[in-house]
Amino acid sequence: MTLVRQPTHAGVRDAAAKIARILPPTPVFVVELQGVAVAFKAESLQPVGAFKIRGAWHRLTTLDPAARARGVVAFSSGNHAQGVAWAAQRLGMPATIVMPSDAPEVKRAATLALGAEIVGYDRRSESRERIAGDLAAQRGATLVPSFDDPWVIEGQGSAGIEAAAQMAAEGLGPVRHAVTPCGGGGLAAGLALALPDARVTVVEPAGWDDMRVSLEAGRIEPVAADAPDTACDALQTPRVSPLTFAVLAGRGATGVSVSEADVRAAQRWAARQLRLVVEPGGAVALAALLAGKVAPTQGMLVLLSGGNVDPQAYAAVLARND
Amino acid sequence: MTLVRQPTHAGVRDAAAKIARILPPTPVFVVELQGVAVAFKAESLQPVGAFKIRGAWHRLTTLDPAARARGVVAFSSGNHAQGVAWAAQRLGMPATIVMPSDAPEVKRAATLALGAEIVGYDRRSESRERIAGDLAAQRGATLVPSFDDPWVIEGQGSAGIEAAAQMAAEGLGPVRHAVTPCGGGGLAAGLALALPDARVTVVEPAGWDDMRVSLEAGRIEPVAADAPDTACDALQTPRVSPLTFAVLAGRGATGVSVSEADVRAAQRWAARQLRLVVEPGGAVALAALLAGKVAPTQGMLVLLSGGNVDPQAYAAVLARND
Repeated sequence: MTLVRQPTHAGVRDAAAKIARILPPTPVFVVELQGVAVAFKAESLQPVGAFKIRGAWHRLTTLDPAARARGVVAFSSGNHAQGVAWAAQRLGMPATIVMPSDAPEVKRAATLALGAEIVGYDRRSESRERIAGDLAAQRGATLVPSFDDPWVIEGQGSAGIEAAAQMAAEGLGPVRHAVTPCGGGGLAAGLALALPDARVTVVEPAGWDDMRVSLEAGRIEPVAADAPDTACDALQTPRVSPLTFAVLAGRGATGVSVSEADVRAAQRWAARQLRLVVEPGGAVALAALLAGKVAPTQGMLVLLSGGNVDPQAYAAVLARND
Repeated sequence: MTLVRQPTHAGVRDAAAKIARILPPTPVFVVELQGVAVAFKAESLQPVGAFKIRGAWHRLTTLDPAARARGVVAFSSGNHAQGVAWAAQRLGMPATIVMPSDAPEVKRAATLALGAEIVGYDRRSESRERIAGDLAAQRGATLVPSFDDPWVIEGQGSAGIEAAAQMAAEGLGPVRHAVTPCGGGGLAAGLALALPDARVTVVEPAGWDDMRVSLEAGRIEPVAADAPDTACDALQTPRVSPLTFAVLAGRGATGVSVSEADVRAAQRWAARQLRLVVEPGGAVALAALLAGKVAPTQGMLVLLSGGNVDPQAYAAVLARND
């Protein structure tokens, strides 16, 4: 029996210290909502446009020189791919990203520009998990999961350590309530570990709110097979992981869901009020606030987790009024 | 004869120290262009979405209590109005903004939300200078020009002091070349004063490149009466001021112009690569780099000066491909 390493608060602190040596803190913007100062952490302003760079860096830097030389493999069509590619490039490691053959050209190009190799697969007939697993086994490379990994969770949590220091410096006091987008739960679980005294609310698109359902049920419930379409591609995770679920359940975290219209309104608000490009999945926590599903309270931290948009789809959202 | 106070490097440093007490530095993003690390200073991320908050704060904080009580008047339909309104609100001073009656609703609303009074005028038949001057005289209020003012110039220059410290901290060394949008020249002159060892290039939209023409001619030349339309509303200044011109001419600054298509391409690049919403006038310096009109060099600082866009116009720019 293999003992699974559990992510810890100390691990998050270690990750935060390592990341502080290579990346400046992402900005925190303080905005009054209903008379309450709310802090927005713009992880969309990371070099790859998302917090994923944190978990990738923490994971890859734990590898020994021999493992580094054999490289890493990840499967993702999006922000995790770029986070892993960015970290691997910076460490001089080979990175292979397994990505659907029909992934948007902009995402392929961004991953290639970071020096990674792309291996395509057919979304309808092939399993990316198997392809990635086989590749890793052939090459002796390390598979880096996008959320089901203790180092990845700890790395993402470093955003919470950073934000807490920034909010204290701005005179906002300790973080009392963290509101965060949730796909597989890596960022959410990381924040829960980073901020042991804060309430944690995870936000998901309606129909993809399996973490909310799982937390209410007390056991992992997958997304329904007939889940609706969502613009939040970064949050389309069919099932959360035992690691992320255990952390969040252990902390009494709860969840809310937002509609597609809530998300679009949040993207427009971010563009106008914060002058930030935020992708749909990155805007769901803000959407929950603006839609009245989470009430602003003192010491509130809201994560804007990513800013990688499809230009045409984003333009259409900005031009709409719904 | 009235002696006109000249803006100075010491004044810029004083402004920077005052502003550091109330606002965190705006982020600097480092991006490799043609193999050279270029620093982009995102003044679009200021609370009012533009650098104008700096000059307004420096000017208003020099007023004595009696002058503060009488308030300030400014004429502007845009970022300067919001900068003055923001600073006045924070200092508990009354602010009156003279704005065209047909100004975009989003700009009116933003100014009102900052507690300012708006006085409208007809762009075709009335002089905003006279209306603002009369109002200031009636009320004993202080008129705050948008660029023709030594304190305003010094305040804008504080962005250069901040950026120099940030670039040094990032290991980029001293600022050798500052590339900046230029309307009346307040920001450009402030940067020239802030960075006495840096080359300064001002960037304007084609046909509105009167600072470039003036610097080449060695005397102030106004914009031609038949200047073309431009999306860069923040840079539509018919004539630069003796103060800003003298500073820039004295430093041997030069100018380049960019096309409307260059500006749109820069706005799209900023959205995709930096995940920033940048307004047309705020994107011209970036546009000059991307269009090959300024070559990236070591120690280059590029100002992204504002992010207040008209949502529909911005959506249309993102949806285009020209």
